[in-house]
Amino acid sequence: MAIKPICLEKLERIVGAPFFSAHREDLVCYGYDATASLHLPDAVVFPASAQQVSQIMKLAVAFRVPVIPRGGGSGMTGGALAVYGGIVVVFNRMNRILEIDRENLIARVQSGVITAEFQRRVQHDGLFYPPDPSSADISTIGGNLAECAGGPKAVKYGVTRDYVLGLEAVLPTGEIVKTGVRTAKGVVGYDLTRLIVGSEGTLALITEATVKLLPLPECVMTLTAAFDGMDTAARAVSEIVCSHTVPRTIEFMDNASIRLAEGYLHVGLPVDVGALLIMEVDGRRDEIAGLARALEDLSRHLGAVSVSVAETEAQAQQLWQARKAISPALFKLAPHKINEDIVVPRNRVPDLVAKIDELRSRTGLTMVAFGHAGDGNIHFNIMLDKSDQTALEKANRAVEALFDTTLALGGTISGEHGVGITKAPYLRKELGEAELALMRRIKDAFDPLGLLNPGKIFPE
Amino acid sequence: MAIKPICLEKLERIVGAPFFSAHREDLVCYGYDATASLHLPDAVVFPASAQQVSQIMKLAVAFRVPVIPRGGGSGMTGGALAVYGGIVVVFNRMNRILEIDRENLIARVQSGVITAEFQRRVQHDGLFYPPDPSSADISTIGGNLAECAGGPKAVKYGVTRDYVLGLEAVLPTGEIVKTGVRTAKGVVGYDLTRLIVGSEGTLALITEATVKLLPLPECVMTLTAAFDGMDTAARAVSEIVCSHTVPRTIEFMDNASIRLAEGYLHVGLPVDVGALLIMEVDGRRDEIAGLARALEDLSRHLGAVSVSVAETEAQAQQLWQARKAISPALFKLAPHKINEDIVVPRNRVPDLVAKIDELRSRTGLTMVAFGHAGDGNIHFNIMLDKSDQTALEKANRAVEALFDTTLALGGTISGEHGVGITKAPYLRKELGEAELALMRRIKDAFDPLGLLNPGKIFPE
Repeated sequence: MAIKPICLEKLERIVGAPFFSAHREDLVCYGYDATASLHLPDAVVFPASAQQVSQIMKLAVAFRVPVIPRGGGSGMTGGALAVYGGIVVVFNRMNRILEIDRENLIARVQSGVITAEFQRRVQHDGLFYPPDPSSADISTIGGNLAECAGGPKAVKYGVTRDYVLGLEAVLPTGEIVKTGVRTAKGVVGYDLTRLIVGSEGTLALITEATVKLLPLPECVMTLTAAFDGMDTAARAVSEIVCSHTVPRTIEFMDNASIRLAEGYLHVGLPVDVGALLIMEVDGRRDEIAGLARALEDLSRHLGAVSVSVAETEAQAQQLWQARKAISPALFKLAPHKINEDIVVPRNRVPDLVAKIDELRSRTGLTMVAFGHAGDGNIHFNIMLDKSDQTALEKANRAVEALFDTTLALGGTISGEHGVGITKAPYLRKELGEAELALMRRIKDAFDPLGLLNPGKIFPE
Repeated sequence: MAIKPICLEKLERIVGAPFFSAHREDLVCYGYDATASLHLPDAVVFPASAQQVSQIMKLAVAFRVPVIPRGGGSGMTGGALAVYGGIVVVFNRMNRILEIDRENLIARVQSGVITAEFQRRVQHDGLFYPPDPSSADISTIGGNLAECAGGPKAVKYGVTRDYVLGLEAVLPTGEIVKTGVRTAKGVVGYDLTRLIVGSEGTLALITEATVKLLPLPECVMTLTAAFDGMDTAARAVSEIVCSHTVPRTIEFMDNASIRLAEGYLHVGLPVDVGALLIMEVDGRRDEIAGLARALEDLSRHLGAVSVSVAETEAQAQQLWQARKAISPALFKLAPHKINEDIVVPRNRVPDLVAKIDELRSRTGLTMVAFGHAGDGNIHFNIMLDKSDQTALEKANRAVEALFDTTLALGGTISGEHGVGITKAPYLRKELGEAELALMRRIKDAFDPLGLLNPGKIFPE
C-alpha cells in the first residue's frame, strides 16, 4: 500500500526538501544492506534532530506507515530493510560527538556517528571505546547499539551493551525518552537502556547515547600461533582465556581461511597448518613484553607448532589485514555468501568445527570458518551461486543442520548479527513459546500499532 | 483482605507442610528487611524447585493473591516486604550451586545461594565472581540479581548485571521461562535477562542464574591514602580511575566516618584528616608490587598527605573491618538510620559533599558519608531517633534536598539499593512521565494482574 501524497508532503516539510526523497533512484540506495536483498521504501528522510525523528514517528502513527531506522546499512540480517515499505529514517546527519568527559570516562554521541571515527577521536584524547565490529568504518554507534554489535576485542572487553550507560530515543508512539544514567552505577526503574540495546530497531529509534570509556592501553602486541588442528587450537583457547594473561583478542582461521587470505594478500601465513590463532595483548608499557612472552610460552606449552610475535606495527597491521581480507576474498570462491555468526561455549568449538567438516564433505559445498575463538563465536560461510537452485537448497539445509548442532552444544544462533529477517524463520529453534510470547507483549507495550521496523525478529 | 483458607491449604500442599506457615510468629520473621519496617504476609513458603514456584504463582493468579519473592531479606529499600500482604516466597532451600564450568568460565546456581558462599566456592577453584555487596554474607544471588547489587569492586569489575548471562525465572502468569545464553555472546531476541535483573522482583521470580566468572587474580594489595579534604581526595579519585593502574576498589570515608570507625575498632586510622581513601589493587604475582608502588606514587603526586600500604594480610583485613564497621558503629550515634545510596559523576563528589556539609550545619542533624568513591557512589547516612518527630521531618527534608542536588549534578538517587518502597515517592524526580508510563506498560506485559511484588518501584 503506497503512502498518501499528503503524508509525503508533511514528511518533506518536517525534514526540509534537501533531506527527503521519494525518487526511485534514492530509494534503491536505501533499500539494501549487507544481506544484498532489496526492499524499496516509499520514502527516505535524513532528520537533523530527535525532535524531527519524533515528528516523523508521530506522522507515521497518524498515517499508519512503517518506519525503519537505518545507520550505516551494513547489517548482516536485514535489520535496516523496509520489508513492508514505509519511511526509512537515515541517521547520517545526526553524527556529532556531543561530549567527551575525560574525568568521568564517558562520552555522549548522536546515533549517526561512525564507530571508527568515534574510536579515533577518543583515542586522540588517550581514551578507549572497545566495541569494534568489523564494519566499524561504515557502521554507526546507533546501528551498533540496535544490534548489540560485538567484535574481536570482546574477549577481554565485552560488547556494545557493556559500554552503554544511557540513551535518548524516540518511541514508536513518538515520545522522546531518556533512559539510564551518566554515572558508573544506577538502578532506578527498569533497565530500558539494555532492553532497547539489541532490539534491532523494533522498540525505539535511538537518537543519542551516553557511553562508558576506558583509559587507552599504553601498548598492544600481536602474536600468531599455528596448530596442527582445530582441536588443539580450541583447547589452547580455553586455557588461555582462563589464564592470567587474557589477550584482548583471540581470532582463529581454519585452513581454508588461511589459504584464502594468503592467496589474496601474500603476507606469509603458514598455509599447511590446521588452524591459526591471531592474538592481541594490551597493557602497560612496563608489562607488555612480559605478557607477550608469557602468552608465547603458554601457546607452545598448549601445543602450538609455531608462534611468532609481530616485531613491528607494520607486521601487526599485515596480520590484521589478512584476517580482515577473508570476507572479501571469499567472493573469489563464488558470487554469493551465506554467513552465520553462531556461538558455542568455548570448549565446544572443536565439536562445531567437526560438524562443519562433516557438512562440507557430505554436501560438497564450499565452506569457510573463522572468527572470534575467544568467545566461541564462529563466522561460518557457505560460498555458492544462488542461481544454482540445488546448491541453494543444500546450503539452506546445511545452515539448518548447523543451527541444530549449535543449539545442541549449548550455543546460540547469533552472537552479534541479530535475528533480523534472515534468522527469524529459525527463532523458534532457540526460543520457547513462552519467551516468544513475552517478547511480543513487550513489543506491543512499546509499539501498539506495530509500525516500527515491522517484519524483523519475530517469525511471521 | 485475608487469603481464603482453601488457598492456604492448596499452598501447603504444593510445598509440603514443613515448608509452609501462616503462624504469626513465622510471618513476623519474614515480614521485615533492612529498612526495619514490618509488613506481615498472609503466608510464607519455602519452595524446592522452579516447578513449585510456578505452581505457587498459578495458585496466586487463581485466587488473586500477591506474591513477594524474598532472598536474604537484607534489602535496603523494602523490596522483599509484603506491603499488601500475600505469599512470601523464600528461596533459601533453592541454594544449590548446580555447575561450575572452569573451561568456559561460567557457573549455574539456584537463586537462593548465599553470595559469599558462592564467591568462596569458585575461589576454591581458582575462579572469581566479582560482585560483592556488603551484605554478601547473608544476601543471595537471586536477591543480588533482583536489585542489581553493586559493591566496592565495581570500579574495575562492574556490577551484578555485568556477570549474568542467562536466567530461569517464573513469570507472574506462572510460566517458567529461560532467558539469555550460556555463551560469551548472544543477541537473539529481546534482552529479557537484563530487563529482569534490577526489576526488584516485580517482573519475575528468578529461580536460577547462569553467571560469568573470571580467573582469580593472583594477588591483591591494600593501600590507604589520607587527604586534607574531600576536594583533593575526589580529584585524586578521578585521576586514578583514568590512569593505567586502576584499582579494583576505591572506598572513601569522610572525617566523621573515620572517627566513628576508629572509635569502634581502634585500628590506628588517622582521625585528623579530611578524607581517607582505601584502595585495593589486584593483578599477577609479577606485577602487583609495581602496581601498588605506582598507585602510592600517584596518590602522593595528587596531594595525599600520607599513604600506607598494608604489609600483611592481617593489616589489610583490619582496614576492611574498619570500613565495614562504619555501618554498625553508626548506631552508637543514634537509634535510627536513614541511608541513601546516591551516585554522581565521579568529579562531582566534592559538590555533593559540600551540599552534605551545608545540610549538616543548617539542620544540626548527625550525618555521615562514606562509600564507593571510584563509582561516585556515596552512602549518605542521617542518624536520628525516629520518635523525635521534628528531627524526622528535618531529616526527610534533608534527604529530599540531597536527591535534588544529586540529580542536578547529573546523578541518580540509587546506585545499588533500588527503589523499593522507600524511594518510590521520589521516583518522579528522576524519571519523566513518558519513561514511567513505558515502565508501567512493561510491568503490565509481564504481570497483567499486578500480583507480583505490588507496591514497589512505582509511585502510588
